[in-house]
Amino acid sequence: MSENGERTLAIICSKGTLDMAYPGLVLANAARMMGMEAKLFFTFWGMDIINKHKQPHLKFTPIGNPSTGMPNFVAGLPGVTDMATKMMHKQLEELDMPPVGEFLEMVHDAGAEIYACRMSVDMFKLTEEDFVDEVDGIIGAMEFLEMTEGAEVIFI
Amino acid sequence: MSENGERTLAIICSKGTLDMAYPGLVLANAARMMGMEAKLFFTFWGMDIINKHKQPHLKFTPIGNPSTGMPNFVAGLPGVTDMATKMMHKQLEELDMPPVGEFLEMVHDAGAEIYACRMSVDMFKLTEEDFVDEVDGIIGAMEFLEMTEGAEVIFI
Amino acid sequence: MSENGERTLAIICSKGTLDMAYPGLVLANAARMMGMEAKLFFTFWGMDIINKHKQPHLKFTPIGNPSTGMPNFVAGLPGVTDMATKMMHKQLEELDMPPVGEFLEMVHDAGAEIYACRMSVDMFKLTEEDFVDEVDGIIGAMEFLEMTEGAEVIFI
Repeated sequence: MSENGERTLAIICSKGTLDMAYPGLVLANAARMMGMEAKLFFTFWGMDIINKHKQPHLKFTPIGNPSTGMPNFVAGLPGVTDMATKMMHKQLEELDMPPVGEFLEMVHDAGAEIYACRMSVDMFKLTEEDFVDEVDGIIGAMEFLEMTEGAEVIFI
Repeated sequence: MSENGERTLAIICSKGTLDMAYPGLVLANAARMMGMEAKLFFTFWGMDIINKHKQPHLKFTPIGNPSTGMPNFVAGLPGVTDMATKMMHKQLEELDMPPVGEFLEMVHDAGAEIYACRMSVDMFKLTEEDFVDEVDGIIGAMEFLEMTEGAEVIFI
Repeated sequence: MSENGERTLAIICSKGTLDMAYPGLVLANAARMMGMEAKLFFTFWGMDIINKHKQPHLKFTPIGNPSTGMPNFVAGLPGVTDMATKMMHKQLEELDMPPVGEFLEMVHDAGAEIYACRMSVDMFKLTEEDFVDEVDGIIGAMEFLEMTEGAEVIFI
C-alpha cells in the first residue's frame, strides 16, 4: 500500500543489459494495467536504461550465461555480443515487445513513476540533461523508501 | 498475505545458472515448512529450471564471479564451466542438497505453486510439453501479480 | 512490519562483487536513517562481504557488463579486473562512500542486523572465526523468514 492506500509495486533496476531491462518494464506495465501504482528507481548499471545516450544501445551478452548454450570462449569473441544483441532485438520484435525507449515511455504514460538514484548520478557524473524525458526526478535511497512504504519491492 | 489471508512468499526466478537456481528453491522450501504459501514464477533465463530438457544440465560458470577466486582469463577457457559445475554438484551433494529437479518436485509436493511466464514461453518458442510435470500453469505477469497481492516478493 | 510493529527492510545479499556489495549497504543505511528496521542476510557469493579474509579484496569485473562500455574480449584479459576494481574504489572515494568493511560497521552500529546463511557457511566450510565482528548470528532461511514477517524483502 502506498501513502494513499493503493497497492504499489516498487522496482529497483540495477542492471544495464538489454535482457535485464525488460523484467522491470514488463512488471511495471502489468502493475499499471491492474490499477496498481508502479514506481521505478534506476540505480548503478540500471542508469543506462534512462540515459538517453546509452538507452538505444543496450546490449545483451551471452558471456557468463549458460542458458544461451554458448560456451564462454565463444561468447567472449569480438562481435558476439553485437550479434546476440541483434538476435534478441529480433526475438523481442516477433513478440511485439516495444524497444526499451518506447516501452519506458508507454509505462510512464500509463502512470508509472520513474526516478534516477542521486548517488549513481554523482558516481557516473551525469546531469538531468543526460536523461530521457520520462524521468520524474533524481532522488536518494531514503526518498525512495519513503514513497514506497507498504509496497511490494523488487530488486532487479 | 494472499487472498485467503495466508502469509505468502512470491519468487520470480529469472536466472538459469546452477548456483542461482538454489536460492529460490531453498526459500520456497523454507516458506512451506513454516506454513507460508510459496508461489514461484519462472521467467527469462529462469525458464531453464522448469524446462525438462535443460533442467538436468544447468551449469555454473565462474566467469564474471570474482568470489570464486578464478581470474576471468582462466574461467573463460574451454572445459572450465563443466569442471566448475561438477565441483558445485559435489559440494551440494555433501550438503545433502537434492539436485534441482528433485528439489523442485519436493517443493511442489510440499505445496509450492510453480508457474511459467507466458511471454518467456513465447520468446523461447516453448510448449507445455517442454516443461517438467510440476508446472501448474503458464501465466502472464498480470496474473502473477493478481495472485500475489500482499505477498513478500523477491526477484532472483 | 516486524513482530514489534516496525516497518522493516529485509535484504538478502547473494553476490560477492564490489559493485553489488553497495546496494544492500546503501539501502540498509537509508532504512536505518529513516527509523526502519534493517535485516541483512548474506548467502551464496554474498558471504564474501562478511568474510573477513575476503571482504577487503572484493573485486569489480567489467566482463559480461556492457554498461562499462568494455568489450568482453578486453574485459577478460589478465589485470583488467584489478584495474577496474581500482577505478571503482576511486569513484566511490570521490563520492565519500566508505569502503565496504567500514560501511558494514557503520550500518551495524546504526542498528542493522547482520546474519550469515547457515547453508552457505556449510557449503564454503566456514566457521564463526571467518566472519567480521558485525555478524549477529548464523541462521537458516526459515529463521530469516520468521524474523522478517511483514517486511519489504529484496534479493540482491
